[in-house]
Amino acid sequence: MSTKQKRFFLTEDQIPTQWYNIQADMVNKPMPPLNPQTKQPLKPEDLYPIFAKELCHQELDQKNAWIDIPEEVRDMYKYYRSTPLVRAYGLEKALGTPAHIYFKNESVSPVGSHKLNSALPQAYYCKEEGVTNITTETGAGQWGCALSYAAKVFGLEAAVYQVKISYNQKPYRRSIMQTYGAQVTPSPSMSTKAGKKILTEDPNNQGSLGTAISEAIELAVSTPNCKYTLGSVLSHVTLHQTIIGLEAEKQMEMAGEYPDIVIGCFGGGSNFGGISFPFMRHNILEGKKTRFIAAEPASCPKLTQGVFQYDFGDVAGYTPLLPMYTLGHNFMPANIHAGGLRYHGAGVIVSQLLKDGLMEATDIKQTESFKAGTLFAKAEGIIPAPESCHAIAAAINEANKCKETGEEKVILFNLSGHGLIDMSAYDQYLSGSLLDFEITEEDVKRNIAELEKVIK
Amino acid sequence: MSTKQKRFFLTEDQIPTQWYNIQADMVNKPMPPLNPQTKQPLKPEDLYPIFAKELCHQELDQKNAWIDIPEEVRDMYKYYRSTPLVRAYGLEKALGTPAHIYFKNESVSPVGSHKLNSALPQAYYCKEEGVTNITTETGAGQWGCALSYAAKVFGLEAAVYQVKISYNQKPYRRSIMQTYGAQVTPSPSMSTKAGKKILTEDPNNQGSLGTAISEAIELAVSTPNCKYTLGSVLSHVTLHQTIIGLEAEKQMEMAGEYPDIVIGCFGGGSNFGGISFPFMRHNILEGKKTRFIAAEPASCPKLTQGVFQYDFGDVAGYTPLLPMYTLGHNFMPANIHAGGLRYHGAGVIVSQLLKDGLMEATDIKQTESFKAGTLFAKAEGIIPAPESCHAIAAAINEANKCKETGEEKVILFNLSGHGLIDMSAYDQYLSGSLLDFEITEEDVKRNIAELEKVIK
Repeated sequence: MSTKQKRFFLTEDQIPTQWYNIQADMVNKPMPPLNPQTKQPLKPEDLYPIFAKELCHQELDQKNAWIDIPEEVRDMYKYYRSTPLVRAYGLEKALGTPAHIYFKNESVSPVGSHKLNSALPQAYYCKEEGVTNITTETGAGQWGCALSYAAKVFGLEAAVYQVKISYNQKPYRRSIMQTYGAQVTPSPSMSTKAGKKILTEDPNNQGSLGTAISEAIELAVSTPNCKYTLGSVLSHVTLHQTIIGLEAEKQMEMAGEYPDIVIGCFGGGSNFGGISFPFMRHNILEGKKTRFIAAEPASCPKLTQGVFQYDFGDVAGYTPLLPMYTLGHNFMPANIHAGGLRYHGAGVIVSQLLKDGLMEATDIKQTESFKAGTLFAKAEGIIPAPESCHAIAAAINEANKCKETGEEKVILFNLSGHGLIDMSAYDQYLSGSLLDFEITEEDVKRNIAELEKVIK
Repeated sequence: MSTKQKRFFLTEDQIPTQWYNIQADMVNKPMPPLNPQTKQPLKPEDLYPIFAKELCHQELDQKNAWIDIPEEVRDMYKYYRSTPLVRAYGLEKALGTPAHIYFKNESVSPVGSHKLNSALPQAYYCKEEGVTNITTETGAGQWGCALSYAAKVFGLEAAVYQVKISYNQKPYRRSIMQTYGAQVTPSPSMSTKAGKKILTEDPNNQGSLGTAISEAIELAVSTPNCKYTLGSVLSHVTLHQTIIGLEAEKQMEMAGEYPDIVIGCFGGGSNFGGISFPFMRHNILEGKKTRFIAAEPASCPKLTQGVFQYDFGDVAGYTPLLPMYTLGHNFMPANIHAGGLRYHGAGVIVSQLLKDGLMEATDIKQTESFKAGTLFAKAEGIIPAPESCHAIAAAINEANKCKETGEEKVILFNLSGHGLIDMSAYDQYLSGSLLDFEITEEDVKRNIAELEKVIK
């Protein structure tokens, strides 16, 4: 048992005052989102009907590497940031690895995950621009909880469409959103045209992030003074999440180390980009050789098995066309517990970075993820979110390689949230009834073929 | 919105290295626990069959005001301590009070509550003395989770008896304990003589901390190399929890303030004593005038309606006789959601302090507690445990008095844990179906009369 320092914190005045926009430093910029009708590149103004204006500009900003965090947002960050950087001595011991494992513990945010980092600025900008109501989608509910609380902070009304399977499987997150004062509707629902269409075609449709996004956008554009907000995928969301990596950079310095490998679980990319991009900057600008690994579920493998292609961000086709690794916007992911990773596509920045070989991706089966999460819980005491379990599994795989080679590599992963609301999943794992879901090459091909018909 | 500092942390080398034993400074010492057969005062040796030896000595120590925290325990504390002291600007604003409200946020412990502060040393001392198996009781499961994880840390096997009503109502905490590797049994069970007797007399008995304690003690004394551990009530547990108040003392100094009022919710007393005693020391030794308020549920009001009397700590009568405020050890509390507060008696130290007027008690109805908790959640983002909601309600009451008088009092309360596993309770509150449970004077009198027959 070590008596060395375990946790590293920043003082409130050391918390970063700017987010990092990697687009400015990328050699190959992300390709532009397209208007689906005209196929012309989008301008910020084209997004005004959906998002707060400031967010539209952040979304497409390829020039400014540093974006000021508004004082009101910094003020709210101080309630839970910096989050601890933790040296995982317990996990290292359990694995018997010479690797040094660190994790950034975003689970200590009041809402239990990193999602608040973007919910606060999104709600703030909406309020600044005179918006009174905001809508969003949520999968397992981490984002919905964060947005509901952020809305309350800035005096906005929040309406959340939650993926139906999660709404029914994990009622506690719905309760949390309602405790914060939000309206929560299971998606697909009969409250929107998009939802009605889906339910007419498939009355038992259990929803996906794609269906919930369609409904939330429809509500936003059809309601006065209402904007839509999104919890991942988009570049401005990832921008806000860089607060994680920027803090971690300073904290790793306090620990006297620099990561050889940075790992995040992968749904749309904001958590992965949030921890990675501040470090990747040193690869791009200074030739550092850190590896970046996105850990996605084997049942929703857009990075490892998808195609790079313009696609819609939602099922109904309301969004612009985005250049991304995708399984096709009609892809209906299996009902894994990591609801936040059930999304058909990857954000445009990450997609370009993966295409250019600046990062890697690995896929993790559901049972492997919970095996890793259970080991982590016993070793470090924290029950990880099913999403975060994917990052832990990837970190364990790398640490085990170090055990074979004897290398003392420094591994950093993001613990994006806790899994206290997901204990039924752990129950299934412990009782041996947790399933793995396979996705066949044929499934992927069929979806992509459908996609090509729609997009052309 | 203030830009002043919100959270106060200690560096790892500022974390206290000793616990504070208020017994040494009390003018009127607690009366001794008695052997129920001989009615003779207990010596530490009399407790050896049940607890680790070191804990038996801590229990009865009335001489040493400061007890060293073992290095191995301090090392584990560093994974989550210091916990933040938070200035509750959001709550102050929501109330419109001139009071300065602070809370000590114990919910950020890996297991979600303050309980780990005592679970770690209890497991550590057991391991040091060659014990291989530990047993305990748990209500809502906060203590059981902490003990299960602490057992894993020190390589012990844990068997937990969980109050049946909580086991069934809140299966997630059972899952957490099992994820840490513990065996969990609903109490009363057929696995012990005490449990069989209870179930024979009352097959639908839903359990209480008193029944679970009986079963856990019976298992401990009938199993080789096995000791019993307890999550509250006893003096050594409260001793360990003083880490909360000792940290808070330093953190309040960093904030440049000293509390006029210190508040903790009250089940057995360890959370209340943990936050209070380090400050009460200055009342005793230096004549400070801080008020200390224990917030108990109106449905289990031992401090406000019980009698000061020797009583058993458990239903079966396995424990020594303890001089305490009690509703009688046969008192079966209503099924409120604050499972950790469903206990018939108060610890001997607190009982003496209350008798001597060194502290106060207030009772809070269940609906009032959730009203306070919901307000707090919206204002501060954290969903509080049902137990902690009682402390919040008492703090709000005091802050509202300040609003009337205009006084800028400094109020400190302990946020003992989060309520993420208790969302069904919030659901009930939000839907208006949450009940209040009355306890009549007659109920109390009948229990006390029964008690007197047994004790005599």
